Amino acid sequence: MNWPLRDRCAIPGIGHTEFSRKSGRSTLTLAVEATLAAVGDAGLPVTEVDGIVRCDLDDVQCHDLADALGLPTLSYFGTGGTAGTAPCGMVGQAAAAVMAGLANTVVVFRSINGRSGTRFGTRRGGRNLPVGGNGTFTEYSIPHGLVAPGQAYSMIARRHMIDFGTTSEQLGHIAVACRNRANANPNAQMHGRELTLETYLQSPMLTDPLRLCDYCLETDGACAVVITTAERARDCPEPPVLIRSAAQASTTDFDGGMWAATVMRRDLTTHPSADAGCLLYERAGLGPDDIDVAQIYDCFTITVLMQLEDYGFCDKGEGGPFAASGALELGGRLPINTAGGNLSEGYVHGLSHVLEGVRQIRGSSTQQVDSVKNCLVTSGIPTATSALILAKA
Amino acid sequence: MNWPLRDRCAIPGIGHTEFSRKSGRSTLTLAVEATLAAVGDAGLPVTEVDGIVRCDLDDVQCHDLADALGLPTLSYFGTGGTAGTAPCGMVGQAAAAVMAGLANTVVVFRSINGRSGTRFGTRRGGRNLPVGGNGTFTEYSIPHGLVAPGQAYSMIARRHMIDFGTTSEQLGHIAVACRNRANANPNAQMHGRELTLETYLQSPMLTDPLRLCDYCLETDGACAVVITTAERARDCPEPPVLIRSAAQASTTDFDGGMWAATVMRRDLTTHPSADAGCLLYERAGLGPDDIDVAQIYDCFTITVLMQLEDYGFCDKGEGGPFAASGALELGGRLPINTAGGNLSEGYVHGLSHVLEGVRQIRGSSTQQVDSVKNCLVTSGIPTATSALILAKA
Repeated sequence: MNWPLRDRCAIPGIGHTEFSRKSGRSTLTLAVEATLAAVGDAGLPVTEVDGIVRCDLDDVQCHDLADALGLPTLSYFGTGGTAGTAPCGMVGQAAAAVMAGLANTVVVFRSINGRSGTRFGTRRGGRNLPVGGNGTFTEYSIPHGLVAPGQAYSMIARRHMIDFGTTSEQLGHIAVACRNRANANPNAQMHGRELTLETYLQSPMLTDPLRLCDYCLETDGACAVVITTAERARDCPEPPVLIRSAAQASTTDFDGGMWAATVMRRDLTTHPSADAGCLLYERAGLGPDDIDVAQIYDCFTITVLMQLEDYGFCDKGEGGPFAASGALELGGRLPINTAGGNLSEGYVHGLSHVLEGVRQIRGSSTQQVDSVKNCLVTSGIPTATSALILAKA
Repeated sequence: MNWPLRDRCAIPGIGHTEFSRKSGRSTLTLAVEATLAAVGDAGLPVTEVDGIVRCDLDDVQCHDLADALGLPTLSYFGTGGTAGTAPCGMVGQAAAAVMAGLANTVVVFRSINGRSGTRFGTRRGGRNLPVGGNGTFTEYSIPHGLVAPGQAYSMIARRHMIDFGTTSEQLGHIAVACRNRANANPNAQMHGRELTLETYLQSPMLTDPLRLCDYCLETDGACAVVITTAERARDCPEPPVLIRSAAQASTTDFDGGMWAATVMRRDLTTHPSADAGCLLYERAGLGPDDIDVAQIYDCFTITVLMQLEDYGFCDKGEGGPFAASGALELGGRLPINTAGGNLSEGYVHGLSHVLEGVRQIRGSSTQQVDSVKNCLVTSGIPTATSALILAKA
């Protein structure tokens, strides 16, 4: 397959703020800081930015960011999917816009005060949880007390345990791998806080069978990524990181587009990630064996475990044994979330995974894997998903 | 300029529902009806649809529509800009996705119960009008009683009158031209209700200097457009309508991304449409003289008048005399809004303009202009804008 977008665009710059529990600043200020860091990393003046892609849950509109950056105009603006489904899809959208000539230099950003502001993991109301609206299905879940993401993912985890014999210990290996990586990353929120399988198993059970350490963090912070043509990226200071492949997929059955719908489905243990994976590899002309390191969306440990299956690193139902085999650690078959992931670095709705994917291709991660040629990056929840393969030029 | 996207994609199908004041149905149901009509018009089975682009104000998520259509998955989903800035930008985004190989057949839709549900033109609260959030500036306008779009546009109209001598009569010619076209379109909400300059001037003053007839309608309804490659579109039943050019632009000065910010700017009579117009023509290799007919976003008459200037059909400040010259009527220099526009056909946030642009290229409008080769379609408010040139193959 000669996929049109393959290796046509690249990421010459990445930037982020501190990840904290209380930024003390607006999301717009955080977005500006991350964007300026990213364009600075790309060696470009900020005035080169002529496109912005945001996540649809972001407080910050494209035009607000453009205005705060002092840009004269934007020739492309768009929005990716919802929440954790979005980051890789936003990068794909930006790359398509660049290839099509709609813009030359597109910034993809995500900015949240996810701890001091709107907390995504808690019981939600107001604008983040429409009830009775058209096209949303939360009216079916709220009356039954299903009001927080952890509740939904606990049912998915339980189903996986029943169907495939998955254990808490196996989930724990995912949490521990992420923490081990975070402990080498000074910017990680959980840096310096050791986690062992033993302490994981002692962590409080929040939504049985998921424990505190199965949950991602709550984070104030922002990330930004610059996308331009592969050709232009060659002139930037950092080694070019090619966007080799990009894909999105949505669920094949009942879906409300919101997290509550993650459990309103016929088959709880099947993610659309499997569809995204097929497309992603076909477009890249690669397979799972070509992936050297992966940044896997980890709002909960169970989503990592299932994506290991969906992206073809093990058979369906074998995610647990694969995780427990040591494969996810540095030196293993597939080191994951090498900056710490959403579980231990910070939760900027998954865009931080794209940044770490770029670092792995550059060779600049604090937990660098040897001889990385291709890095898988995923964003996704059971309703929809997106993914990238980033590659060495 | 050899613009990559020029003529690479086409619109083989369009569809819409009835435009009414009370649909009695959910926006999801309306979106499904419009989409099925559009894919039917394209002669494609609905299962060919593998991408969806929505407007960020739509109640309906891409995944909800996909699910309701019975699609197995989506390989592309994205969201365009806000409200009236979005439609042409959504089409551009869809075309870029198709060109990049992210999807083959993308549906762009907009579905609203704009009269029986959330009314955009009235004083707004709740989720449509965030106050005190980061990156929105409505907290600066609400305390001063600036709570409805008409108030903002009235200030723009007054400024244009002061600076350039624009008159109510000149605005009236725009409203009358749209109504004249609507009276030939049985699907128009105002079909059969004659409007003359005299009755226009007698219509109630709502926000001085804007009258009732300067305001667009409130509509329940949905529109959908199918985008695919120009090559594939050649095999569809209707004559191919090429996407010759697409552009977006955002404002160059203070902007909140929301309608209230339309007046929080240094120069009220300058739209980013002027920037979009430059890009649009450059990418098409065309100029205003090549445009045979135009569908111009008309949330209020004043926005049409200013876009006539911005897209180069007359000099800055000359929009009023141009409108009053008869240019906008059938047989004039630039017939506009030939289905009736937002002012008289229906207000589906401007996506209906894309449908009518397609009809003009096909030669199937109820007010067909002779020998149309290029049709300008615009979407846009003073904070951001987008535009297309649709062309005969």
